[in-house]
Amino acid sequence: MDLSDTDWLQQFGPLADLAPSERTPMVGGAVPMELPAGVTVFAPDQPCNFFILVCEGQVRVYQLDAEGNEIVLYRIGPGGMCILTTLALLADQSYSAFAVTETPVKAVGLPAATFHDLMGRSARFRSFVFNAQAARMADLMRVIQHVAFESIESRLASRLLTLTSGQSALSITHQQLAAEIGTAREVVSRHLKAFEKRGWVSLGRGRVELRKAAPLRAVAASAGR
Amino acid sequence: MDLSDTDWLQQFGPLADLAPSERTPMVGGAVPMELPAGVTVFAPDQPCNFFILVCEGQVRVYQLDAEGNEIVLYRIGPGGMCILTTLALLADQSYSAFAVTETPVKAVGLPAATFHDLMGRSARFRSFVFNAQAARMADLMRVIQHVAFESIESRLASRLLTLTSGQSALSITHQQLAAEIGTAREVVSRHLKAFEKRGWVSLGRGRVELRKAAPLRAVAASAGR
Repeated sequence: MDLSDTDWLQQFGPLADLAPSERTPMVGGAVPMELPAGVTVFAPDQPCNFFILVCEGQVRVYQLDAEGNEIVLYRIGPGGMCILTTLALLADQSYSAFAVTETPVKAVGLPAATFHDLMGRSARFRSFVFNAQAARMADLMRVIQHVAFESIESRLASRLLTLTSGQSALSITHQQLAAEIGTAREVVSRHLKAFEKRGWVSLGRGRVELRKAAPLRAVAASAGR
Repeated sequence: MDLSDTDWLQQFGPLADLAPSERTPMVGGAVPMELPAGVTVFAPDQPCNFFILVCEGQVRVYQLDAEGNEIVLYRIGPGGMCILTTLALLADQSYSAFAVTETPVKAVGLPAATFHDLMGRSARFRSFVFNAQAARMADLMRVIQHVAFESIESRLASRLLTLTSGQSALSITHQQLAAEIGTAREVVSRHLKAFEKRGWVSLGRGRVELRKAAPLRAVAASAGR
């Protein structure tokens, strides 16, 4: 990726409108990154040296507890940035969170010094960072709401529909689905089997096929626990 | 509260070390606030004009969903600030969250313009804001972990012990306890009755008395669902 062509800035909202005095240090310090799928870009014990802007592809951010339970917090797509990376750069806080590339990812990394310089220098840059943080905070609050107040059945149906996004089948394990909705694998398996019994899905090894979307949508819409 | 005596800055970590050029606009723009218990200081439909630093007392921040389910997200005590207020000032994001004073509260409010000025001017002020944000983010992630992966019994026992903090009784309704751990009132009532049957608590109207702390501590320590 050639960063001297600053077209990539267009997808990061307010950053496209940076004044030349702000744009030059930003582009000058930026480092292009190309990562294959499956690379861990953020982990609790890993030093964080870059503020990362995602240009292409998708990163999954998830949390892991002491027992190895996983829960997906949010995903970062083109035009997004990772708030946890940012806060790890800015504050003395460690998180039990991981970020992993789900697809090949092209990104731009700003070294910590450039990032701090821009935070002091540019109101537009600050606004970009704060808006992204605010959106992630809202994501986390939505996760809390789902996990606390929606039934497993409803969360599972909803997530199956989101993940297939119009396609008829999904390559995913029960363990991965459990992480998506924040529950245990055996709980997911039990509910999937119930869905299969009703003819809504067919189950294969590491694969879920959608048979009837309408009842899944109805269950997804009923939040009741 | 007399703000010209800048002793109150001492409890806000890095703010105590502000250079005079940063301290003067901060103290000059600051507005003292004194609120009784039970005042809503942040709500989804309420404009947010101040960055609030809590000097004395406690504020509870909670989330409410469309069905009226409540879950406590965190509490802000002396030396703390509200990240949601901050993000509402900084970004175009609305939250389904409320903040209410649990005790009488003394606070200092910085008007939005002063806040933005300091964010641009002072690396120390930014560091204070980011550290507070990072800590709240960690709080939210802990809430997610508790709600997703710990049993109601364990969360209830743990919260009873925290809220009594050494005292033997607690003035609280089942509805309020449900909000503390992010579940429904009837679920809390069922578990409290089970605790009572085992002789661990006695229940009264709007009141829970702790009888045996040891088994409650044991249950609190066992995260198992």
